[in-house]
Amino acid sequence: MNPVHFEDCSFLNLQAYFSSHPFSSVYVLADENIVLHCYPKIVSYFPPHRVIQIKSGEENKSISTCEIVWQKLTAANADRKTLLINLGGGVIGDMGGFAAGCYKRGIKFINIPTTLLAMVDASVGAKCGIDFMRYKNQIGLFNEPEAVFIYTDFLETLPERELRSGFAEVIKHYLIADKDAFEEVRSQKSEVSSIKWDTVVRKNVAIKQQIVEQDPTEQSIRKALNFGHTVGHALESFFLNEKQQKLLHGEAVAIGMVCESFISYRKGLLKDHELQQIAEVVLQYFNHTYIAEQHFKSITKLIAQDKKNEADETCFTLLSGIGSYTINQLVEKDLIRESLVYFNSLH
Amino acid sequence: MNPVHFEDCSFLNLQAYFSSHPFSSVYVLADENIVLHCYPKIVSYFPPHRVIQIKSGEENKSISTCEIVWQKLTAANADRKTLLINLGGGVIGDMGGFAAGCYKRGIKFINIPTTLLAMVDASVGAKCGIDFMRYKNQIGLFNEPEAVFIYTDFLETLPERELRSGFAEVIKHYLIADKDAFEEVRSQKSEVSSIKWDTVVRKNVAIKQQIVEQDPTEQSIRKALNFGHTVGHALESFFLNEKQQKLLHGEAVAIGMVCESFISYRKGLLKDHELQQIAEVVLQYFNHTYIAEQHFKSITKLIAQDKKNEADETCFTLLSGIGSYTINQLVEKDLIRESLVYFNSLH
Repeated sequence: MNPVHFEDCSFLNLQAYFSSHPFSSVYVLADENIVLHCYPKIVSYFPPHRVIQIKSGEENKSISTCEIVWQKLTAANADRKTLLINLGGGVIGDMGGFAAGCYKRGIKFINIPTTLLAMVDASVGAKCGIDFMRYKNQIGLFNEPEAVFIYTDFLETLPERELRSGFAEVIKHYLIADKDAFEEVRSQKSEVSSIKWDTVVRKNVAIKQQIVEQDPTEQSIRKALNFGHTVGHALESFFLNEKQQKLLHGEAVAIGMVCESFISYRKGLLKDHELQQIAEVVLQYFNHTYIAEQHFKSITKLIAQDKKNEADETCFTLLSGIGSYTINQLVEKDLIRESLVYFNSLH
Repeated sequence: MNPVHFEDCSFLNLQAYFSSHPFSSVYVLADENIVLHCYPKIVSYFPPHRVIQIKSGEENKSISTCEIVWQKLTAANADRKTLLINLGGGVIGDMGGFAAGCYKRGIKFINIPTTLLAMVDASVGAKCGIDFMRYKNQIGLFNEPEAVFIYTDFLETLPERELRSGFAEVIKHYLIADKDAFEEVRSQKSEVSSIKWDTVVRKNVAIKQQIVEQDPTEQSIRKALNFGHTVGHALESFFLNEKQQKLLHGEAVAIGMVCESFISYRKGLLKDHELQQIAEVVLQYFNHTYIAEQHFKSITKLIAQDKKNEADETCFTLLSGIGSYTINQLVEKDLIRESLVYFNSLH
């Protein structure tokens, strides 16, 4: 699996990487926010390079943005020994990994995540891709970065809403794999702005690595990481084109975790006080989003399209207690609807 | 490496494959010609399936055609256990392999080549991709089919021009790896319509397999297969958008082989009588195409963009005698121009 290096402001690992890995040319993929806030802090540690700047936002994680990347590489005659540096959040990492994997049948890339979400989630494991026809990551590859360099000070530049969004994946990791850590989050009730990120990110990278290592292509236990994401991805896709109310990935996953905990409870896998604790923690960090009943049908239809499904069965990862999970659970449509009703009732 | 099965009209291997490999759904990718001429001969051996029909021609080996494939799969809710059957020539196999490799991070596919070119070349090895910004296979993957099923009787439906085009790869295989077979072609002077294809295809598949097996991702000796293709691809790309004069892949490679043999001769690697023999055989099977001097600049520019290059060096595979080759040969621009002048002189 790709190595993950933790950096301080002198970026020693990154420097060592560049001095031992020669490339014919180097490109940095970043959006306008990253170019403004993060790029200046790290640029002096990059070898000579060009920047490919794309527009921020999940709605630009598209095949047409990929085409822009490929056009720039092609126009500059970038060869197969080119390196792409994905400097940014999940969108940059996912799309950059896909673009690199397809350009001239594959060039190398490294990820330098700048958001909490990308640090604890997208930077480990080899999933990359773009959204297509409203479906998240519908087109993509398993394609591993050469290395990941994490500099948690980048989080200082992050809007609080983005920090909260990333924190959803932190809660997810604890719910599937670390009961004590979840208990700590629950009892401390910290503001996200006061959390010591270095410790949290290291712990979360370790949890994710430990799972991905055992099952890189998601045949079995990697599905644990999908907890909250079956409902979450559908909500994210649904709200992607709703101008009035857009959900960040983590915000959607937060709702997804409550719904899927409800489903776990109704299937007798989770106790009622555990469900309540989970709902409580989620609503402590995330504003409640009311999901109008008229949208339930579109949302369950999106769930049916989930990559994780086989044939017509909707496959969930559920909790079997806080800190443990069970995969490949079939869930009927009515129960999914009920879980959305339950979430709405928490308003 | 993917297994290659030779079939007679009862398609026993294909039947055995389907009875031992269950899929949640099956799609057949084909163009309008294939649907008319080949599909009826094989359809009864396929499990229940849907056909995705695309427009024939290299100009449709594009990202927008891929999007059509992905749209159809998405709209039909095809899951990860879906199989794509690429029934057709090189365009179908290359593009289908790419589309399958990216859909939901990869579904399985098999190739059933229907052209000589696809049988002897595209069906072995894992290269797939699409053309982009006039560059051949600029966007693609190394992605292996589950299996390849070759039924040489499909060649009876093939226009003679397509047969000739495929024969260029046959000549190439002999030039790099089988002097005796080249000698046989030279002495027999057969019409392509009278050749016994079963024997020829088996021999060529074996040559290609033997090379690809040793170097699947083209780090070294697989580059042998690029003989004729550095100039050939550039010519093919150049003429792709020239309405008045389109070159099939093999027609471009045929010219490329003469040019690159000339370069081999001028570098002292090939004897003059060998160069003459090669030019003679090529012109026996292919009409001469005059390349106007005003286009030389565009063509050499396209050569500079070749995937096989590193940095600014143009890397060729050259012949070191008939039946043997040498890879990673740097060739200066002037010599490339000279080779085009030489080819024109054969008019």
